[in-house]
Amino acid sequence: MDNSRLCSWLLVVSSLALGSCAQAQNRTARYDLKMEDLKYTYGPFPPVLKVKAGDTIETNTVDADGHAVEAVGVKVRGPNPLTGPFYVEGAEPGDTLVVRFVSVDVDGKEGWGSLVAGFGGLNSSRYTPILGGGVPNKVWTYPIDKAKNVATFHAADSNFTVNIPLHPFLGCVGVAPADGEARSSIVPAEFGGNMDAPEASVGNTLYLPVNVPGALLFLGDGHAAMGDGEIDGTAIEVSMRVRVKVDLIKHKTIQWPRFENDNYIMAVGIYRPLDDAVRIAFTELIHWMHERNGLSELDAYELLSKTAEIHLDEMVDPNYVIVAKINKKFLPVAK
Amino acid sequence: MDNSRLCSWLLVVSSLALGSCAQAQNRTARYDLKMEDLKYTYGPFPPVLKVKAGDTIETNTVDADGHAVEAVGVKVRGPNPLTGPFYVEGAEPGDTLVVRFVSVDVDGKEGWGSLVAGFGGLNSSRYTPILGGGVPNKVWTYPIDKAKNVATFHAADSNFTVNIPLHPFLGCVGVAPADGEARSSIVPAEFGGNMDAPEASVGNTLYLPVNVPGALLFLGDGHAAMGDGEIDGTAIEVSMRVRVKVDLIKHKTIQWPRFENDNYIMAVGIYRPLDDAVRIAFTELIHWMHERNGLSELDAYELLSKTAEIHLDEMVDPNYVIVAKINKKFLPVAK
Amino acid sequence: MDNSRLCSWLLVVSSLALGSCAQAQNRTARYDLKMEDLKYTYGPFPPVLKVKAGDTIETNTVDADGHAVEAVGVKVRGPNPLTGPFYVEGAEPGDTLVVRFVSVDVDGKEGWGSLVAGFGGLNSSRYTPILGGGVPNKVWTYPIDKAKNVATFHAADSNFTVNIPLHPFLGCVGVAPADGEARSSIVPAEFGGNMDAPEASVGNTLYLPVNVPGALLFLGDGHAAMGDGEIDGTAIEVSMRVRVKVDLIKHKTIQWPRFENDNYIMAVGIYRPLDDAVRIAFTELIHWMHERNGLSELDAYELLSKTAEIHLDEMVDPNYVIVAKINKKFLPVAK
Amino acid sequence: MDNSRLCSWLLVVSSLALGSCAQAQNRTARYDLKMEDLKYTYGPFPPVLKVKAGDTIETNTVDADGHAVEAVGVKVRGPNPLTGPFYVEGAEPGDTLVVRFVSVDVDGKEGWGSLVAGFGGLNSSRYTPILGGGVPNKVWTYPIDKAKNVATFHAADSNFTVNIPLHPFLGCVGVAPADGEARSSIVPAEFGGNMDAPEASVGNTLYLPVNVPGALLFLGDGHAAMGDGEIDGTAIEVSMRVRVKVDLIKHKTIQWPRFENDNYIMAVGIYRPLDDAVRIAFTELIHWMHERNGLSELDAYELLSKTAEIHLDEMVDPNYVIVAKINKKFLPVAK
Repeated sequence: MDNSRLCSWLLVVSSLALGSCAQAQNRTARYDLKMEDLKYTYGPFPPVLKVKAGDTIETNTVDADGHAVEAVGVKVRGPNPLTGPFYVEGAEPGDTLVVRFVSVDVDGKEGWGSLVAGFGGLNSSRYTPILGGGVPNKVWTYPIDKAKNVATFHAADSNFTVNIPLHPFLGCVGVAPADGEARSSIVPAEFGGNMDAPEASVGNTLYLPVNVPGALLFLGDGHAAMGDGEIDGTAIEVSMRVRVKVDLIKHKTIQWPRFENDNYIMAVGIYRPLDDAVRIAFTELIHWMHERNGLSELDAYELLSKTAEIHLDEMVDPNYVIVAKINKKFLPVAK
Repeated sequence: MDNSRLCSWLLVVSSLALGSCAQAQNRTARYDLKMEDLKYTYGPFPPVLKVKAGDTIETNTVDADGHAVEAVGVKVRGPNPLTGPFYVEGAEPGDTLVVRFVSVDVDGKEGWGSLVAGFGGLNSSRYTPILGGGVPNKVWTYPIDKAKNVATFHAADSNFTVNIPLHPFLGCVGVAPADGEARSSIVPAEFGGNMDAPEASVGNTLYLPVNVPGALLFLGDGHAAMGDGEIDGTAIEVSMRVRVKVDLIKHKTIQWPRFENDNYIMAVGIYRPLDDAVRIAFTELIHWMHERNGLSELDAYELLSKTAEIHLDEMVDPNYVIVAKINKKFLPVAK
Repeated sequence: MDNSRLCSWLLVVSSLALGSCAQAQNRTARYDLKMEDLKYTYGPFPPVLKVKAGDTIETNTVDADGHAVEAVGVKVRGPNPLTGPFYVEGAEPGDTLVVRFVSVDVDGKEGWGSLVAGFGGLNSSRYTPILGGGVPNKVWTYPIDKAKNVATFHAADSNFTVNIPLHPFLGCVGVAPADGEARSSIVPAEFGGNMDAPEASVGNTLYLPVNVPGALLFLGDGHAAMGDGEIDGTAIEVSMRVRVKVDLIKHKTIQWPRFENDNYIMAVGIYRPLDDAVRIAFTELIHWMHERNGLSELDAYELLSKTAEIHLDEMVDPNYVIVAKINKKFLPVAK
Repeated sequence: MDNSRLCSWLLVVSSLALGSCAQAQNRTARYDLKMEDLKYTYGPFPPVLKVKAGDTIETNTVDADGHAVEAVGVKVRGPNPLTGPFYVEGAEPGDTLVVRFVSVDVDGKEGWGSLVAGFGGLNSSRYTPILGGGVPNKVWTYPIDKAKNVATFHAADSNFTVNIPLHPFLGCVGVAPADGEARSSIVPAEFGGNMDAPEASVGNTLYLPVNVPGALLFLGDGHAAMGDGEIDGTAIEVSMRVRVKVDLIKHKTIQWPRFENDNYIMAVGIYRPLDDAVRIAFTELIHWMHERNGLSELDAYELLSKTAEIHLDEMVDPNYVIVAKINKKFLPVAK
């Protein structure tokens, strides 16, 4: 890490007291997004910032269409412009990256939602093309009131308006893929990515497989609120200011993303059709319950059939995202 | 209705006060299940009881494997033995049957769950056969404590036990199908049936299309509690004592089942793959929001993308069941 | 009809007087369709004719929309009006019904094809509903020249015409379903039914599971020619004159329909999505190769991966139909 | 192109006669595979050879597991090692690359097939995981007799052997993907790739979208013969010697790969589930028939429903591959 980078550290109070960056244990590393540095794939780019395990990254992201990018005269090159990547020192293939969502705040006074031809769960779309199918392109704007913690929907075809409570989260949180792949920022897959998971919000921790040295974490696609399934293809799309604390579990390999909070363990399955996403999420959750809590796989299968919760995050992206979870109160004490 | 049937009416206090059955407005009609009269298809059987719109049916159901049937020496002829059918006077094709769940109580002191070869979301199954796939047949027994409102899971392969809160509901609630069909009691479809919907519980109302005169309502497959997806193919399977109030909406046609309660309208989509079940549920919900609340279809689509909730009821039966819903607080006043 | 045909008829009451029916060996039993007797479900109807194993049934069927029915002033009650059922004496659940297609001839001088809103592989449809999706209702008429063995397509929106070679087959060949079910004549499933299989044509033999006494065979939905997938929902739809020879394999149970001819064994998989139909067809074919030819299941799996042929019959009906087959020249001598 | 590259040109007689490379019209450019230069993704690598539109590339490929690679002591880094990329001068995004298969010959005396845990259409697999599912890892070796044009299957569990006619083709033919993506050599998608299409053989022409300057063509995964669906995950896997003639259609954009030969136009649909692959292939074919032959889209839809042929290439890779085609004899004269 060079000197100028060092200077970009935002030293937290406790570390300042110690009078030395080098001794800081829980530093906050800040990266202010440069629009020219936005990425449009999860892939092996040079990092915009290097951090250590235990550090908190403080940064900002732009909305899915990059309105904030165009506003400063930079050309947007695709959907979901990404902030990053962030290089986590010591991360090696075979490790697990831990991403704790410390704060996720809407950056701005309004969001937007839209219908776009060829994209959406009930439209004729790129991967489910239907003759004569189609909806018109259409945009809704949502004023956001942070004090009241709501965004406001204004119907286009009537006078109806209604407030929607904010639940800010990042639609895109992912690392560089395995096998030398680079994937579009529209794609969710084994490496996380455009999961459109409301679980990527304050209070939750995300685990991602490390596929390349440094992991290379990308963030983007802020959502002020979203319905299950993100059925027309958009949430309330916003720019964000976020802080995420990163950590490593060395020599721990996971096949698919996982979430955890105080009350739940949550396995993510990502594919098409939804049937397969459900199968992936549940077999992963069963493996996890077996490793973590010592239940046999058949006991875990049976217990989930009585207690599991399923969250359908989205059914509009190139892959679909299912979260299968179990409340920890139904589990033996973790090993 | 003959005299003996008349005597089976359980007259509620208010109707007694009026001194006359004929004048009673909200009668309770009781049918005590005869094991020989169990049905194994939703189809055009002679009714076990005729009721009027506005009546409450009080009856009992047996568990999915019919343990209670065998206990009295009657042969079980298949899964999900059904109580009924109940004939609702005045119901004609083109009407909608309204089923309000007044009480749904576990009838007995234990339930069961099981793994069965060829059935289950993560097994090799009849419709998703996998070479070499398979789990052993296995049964778990769940003691039920109604005072504490819990059932207890005992792990088969370790000493772990845990209590699971009861949420009693009917896995099977359906009417005779359209087009002269008769469907196995294992099947959920347009006529309802084996939806394994936790929504079929106290506080909720179910709407079903009327396909034949009298509607012919069937009930069965009681569940003391179930996880989302019913992933291994079983809930905590129990016999039940239930009361459901039936009503009619004349000349109102619906294509798929719907639920409603004080807070939500809920459209049910039932098919394979889950992708199609989601598409059915959401297009139905959009049509409903348009008819009921006056939103344009595109506004409804957009609003759902921000506020919808999805419940995956089951992914193990011959068809899969999705509930798409919206909180009424996000909707214009109903017309 | 020539004299030899006449002689092979099953002589009704008057023939009994001759005292020779019982000795007849390969009789032809004729049933001339009565429009009032058309059926619209595969189910437990009283038979229109009883035949013996080894008999040939000679009868006629009407087109999928029943134009021929309306022509004589009888009301059509749904799609795919069915001729039958034919009761095969001695057929019991657990047996296999053998249907050999002796002759399948177009009955008339033209056929039709159409687009119908809500039905079709590339339309918004009942089970894959798409917002704004849809094609207009539209009909094409196909003159049929039996001498030249062609039907002629006339484009609706240009002057283009082209001849299509005839390949006459029955879209509907099925028996009464298992488990007390009755299924619409639009449905293909374990009992056969609306398989829209070009394999149901002269030179091929179809095996169906017997689910009820007498099997109860139904025939209908003649096709003069059809493309793979029947992608818009219709073939060249015609009335037919057909002769099928029925036989029984006692105490032989099959789970799904099978076809066979001199060169191929063919297993049919019927469900949604197509992925599952493929899995069903191949696992059935592997079991068949194991039983019939003595190959181990793993050898059969590997050999199919090198030599199998797949025919996608249709992707428009409530279930989809896949035929997986292997040329007998690649198999050990049958046991 | 530097000098050493220039020397690798194999100048055909006619071009030599002209005395100048620059003037040659139909040159053959040869690249002898260097094992260290194998690629494992379709992505933006420096080219191994630059060619001109109209040139024929002569090269060789290794088998899917890289046995030929290990044989010379080079480490194999994944499945489907790829030869290339070949840079086609003048190719720009928005053009179409034309690949004509001039010769495709097995390079060696035997091939192999195998079962691998986690991969295969009837196995528990990465994207369709099944509890307890699984087949053992197992390899079959296929001696190849080019004189007789057959490979020989030897059963593992019996003495059965049978000859299988050769149909040599390339399982992998693809270009660098759009949107800055790089995809594993196991993946088929819009850019072609691991399509496992028997259509990639002598007599056929493949069209691929150009996504990056030079197109960057990759070749690999030779198959001596394959069954429809490649159901256990392998064909008869071999190294190959191939010649492909490349050309460009400037300013012609296609969304998905297409094949053509003297008799057929063929559109490729690639996704999951198969239902969506079929929808993609047919909508593309309808657009093609509209542009090429002037049929209206509804006439094309109807005509395909009567005459289309469908080929299920594979149902085992991360995406599934369907080819929908129509015989040119059923089409108006191409514009």
